[in-house]
Amino acid sequence: MEIKTIADIDIKLASVSKIKDVDFETLSFGNVFTDHMLVCDYENGVWKKPSIEPYAPFMIDPSAKVFHYGQAIFEGMKAYKDEQDDVWLFRPDQNYERFNKSAVRMAMPEVPEDVFMGGLKQLLEIEKDWVKKGKGSSLYIRPFMIATGKGVVAAPAVFYRFMIILSPAKSYYSGEVKVLIAEHFSRAANGGIGAAKAAGNYSAQFYPTKLANEKGYQQIIWTDDATHTKLEEAGTMNVFFRINDTLYTAPTSERILDGVTRKSLIDLAKRENINVEVRPVLVTELVEAAQNGTLQEIFGAGTAAVVNPIVGFEYQGTYYELPKLDQPVALALKEKLNNIQYKLEEDTFGWTVKI
Amino acid sequence: MEIKTIADIDIKLASVSKIKDVDFETLSFGNVFTDHMLVCDYENGVWKKPSIEPYAPFMIDPSAKVFHYGQAIFEGMKAYKDEQDDVWLFRPDQNYERFNKSAVRMAMPEVPEDVFMGGLKQLLEIEKDWVKKGKGSSLYIRPFMIATGKGVVAAPAVFYRFMIILSPAKSYYSGEVKVLIAEHFSRAANGGIGAAKAAGNYSAQFYPTKLANEKGYQQIIWTDDATHTKLEEAGTMNVFFRINDTLYTAPTSERILDGVTRKSLIDLAKRENINVEVRPVLVTELVEAAQNGTLQEIFGAGTAAVVNPIVGFEYQGTYYELPKLDQPVALALKEKLNNIQYKLEEDTFGWTVKI
Repeated sequence: MEIKTIADIDIKLASVSKIKDVDFETLSFGNVFTDHMLVCDYENGVWKKPSIEPYAPFMIDPSAKVFHYGQAIFEGMKAYKDEQDDVWLFRPDQNYERFNKSAVRMAMPEVPEDVFMGGLKQLLEIEKDWVKKGKGSSLYIRPFMIATGKGVVAAPAVFYRFMIILSPAKSYYSGEVKVLIAEHFSRAANGGIGAAKAAGNYSAQFYPTKLANEKGYQQIIWTDDATHTKLEEAGTMNVFFRINDTLYTAPTSERILDGVTRKSLIDLAKRENINVEVRPVLVTELVEAAQNGTLQEIFGAGTAAVVNPIVGFEYQGTYYELPKLDQPVALALKEKLNNIQYKLEEDTFGWTVKI
Repeated sequence: MEIKTIADIDIKLASVSKIKDVDFETLSFGNVFTDHMLVCDYENGVWKKPSIEPYAPFMIDPSAKVFHYGQAIFEGMKAYKDEQDDVWLFRPDQNYERFNKSAVRMAMPEVPEDVFMGGLKQLLEIEKDWVKKGKGSSLYIRPFMIATGKGVVAAPAVFYRFMIILSPAKSYYSGEVKVLIAEHFSRAANGGIGAAKAAGNYSAQFYPTKLANEKGYQQIIWTDDATHTKLEEAGTMNVFFRINDTLYTAPTSERILDGVTRKSLIDLAKRENINVEVRPVLVTELVEAAQNGTLQEIFGAGTAAVVNPIVGFEYQGTYYELPKLDQPVALALKEKLNNIQYKLEEDTFGWTVKI
């Protein structure tokens, strides 16, 4: 795909860049933002002229519906720099498409392609020095939309704001990740908003995750809310299991996010002749595989972490430790995906898009 | 109960009141706000000194967690004015208690009683002219808390803002309300946040409700997400059914809000010797009662509307019209509850609290 530059945009540059104050080697995820942001307001059925302006707080009414009814969606993407100093995006069309699917589910207006993609392209051109070379370095991209319309009646807003903010990133997770399999809490309802990147899905996880943290687990593997028998997501990521030499992951559904990393890993694994089965995975299967020694790996998959290996899980009070492998499939796939993202290997899928 | 005045508060009054510009007879719900608001910030584990200041937009960072992860909760309450010009609250202790329960579920800090109740008392003393006399008139109170902490890592914020804004109100709903019984969409998961007044619960309903509106229905009666066989809530309200002379409503649960109006109506109905059964109500029971003519009434119950009678429902493509009654129980209970709220009748329950 080719990203067209947006035709009509206001650009107001920051007078001083903050980049000199940033230590790119010690970044924690999502706390430092670049000098500029994209802003585009929607008023009474029309998207106004977007602008790129210095990153800064903005004014909003206390009755804005985003505060009261959580009408807000987002995406997570990354920009990578290759050895020739070119900046690349990874499957941005997938994020754009999903963003507008989320918008529909949350009764919000869809964002036009020239605002989302064209705006992102121009923002990245301005901020290209914030994309650092070298594996592990990237610029995390956060497009989001909030309901700015006023009034506490519980109905969709009339005014919205679409924004893109950028945060330089190293890797997302660190240390050993142990998980708790959810037996009571859950992240999504049948007929709910689990498949949308809706803001409310994420804060709903904070309390159960805090309880898991207190028990010594970094994340929760979410199960279906009706029966708690099917394994669905890990924290804010999709989840894969390797039993013997087969990779398993749940099909996407109303409850499970259609993750870009998830589907890329499936395609990549197939190309590498790894057996992949996309089907519901039962907790009982996982426990049995752990008990009989056929469970090799569990890993989360998402944009921020790419791949997040899990060292063990607790279910019904029993902790199951996974084997320590010399050559885990998770890391091999991450390596291959990173090589495509950083343009170190030929992109036979046509996933990468140059800015 | 007695509400103590808050000891330490900054008060900055508006130079001019907007009250003269407001037509109190033609108010639509939740669009006009009074001259002042209460603001209290939470920083690094401590609630700061609250302030009452002119109602106005405020500055917030684009990366505030409320925008990205929906970490936000609210309450809905009302103030009423009696014939002696005294201002009364209705069971404010229940809202305060539920607010902090919501805070815990959303991994947010609990708000101290002197900030919530003391702050509200002082705000209402300043805004007492906005509470109009006469049945139907009230001042809607919206306490809410948002995560103002910066950063797009999906974890609870460190900074929060608690606010109270006030909106003069007439009645919430008008016209005939027909409802659609949910066969696919749902509002809450088992182990989810349905029992919390969390912002994300409400925007999740907007799209299904929009689809219902397009079919000619004003609201949805939500069913349990796993089986869609149990009747749970109506729109953003609890729901009651009258079959023969018995009132039925679902028990509160993780999926069903513990509504103040709901429990007050149960107590009131019992005092009036109306038979009330709190138990799961099945869709099949409702359809059967509609078919055999024993279904008398369906009504929603909530702070904004108090009681919201429903004239008919659609289920599986069939529309069931309810009888037009001369003396519906819904309106009799609303009348009695209003009489207590407006101090026109003795409050034998001790529900009303003078400001």
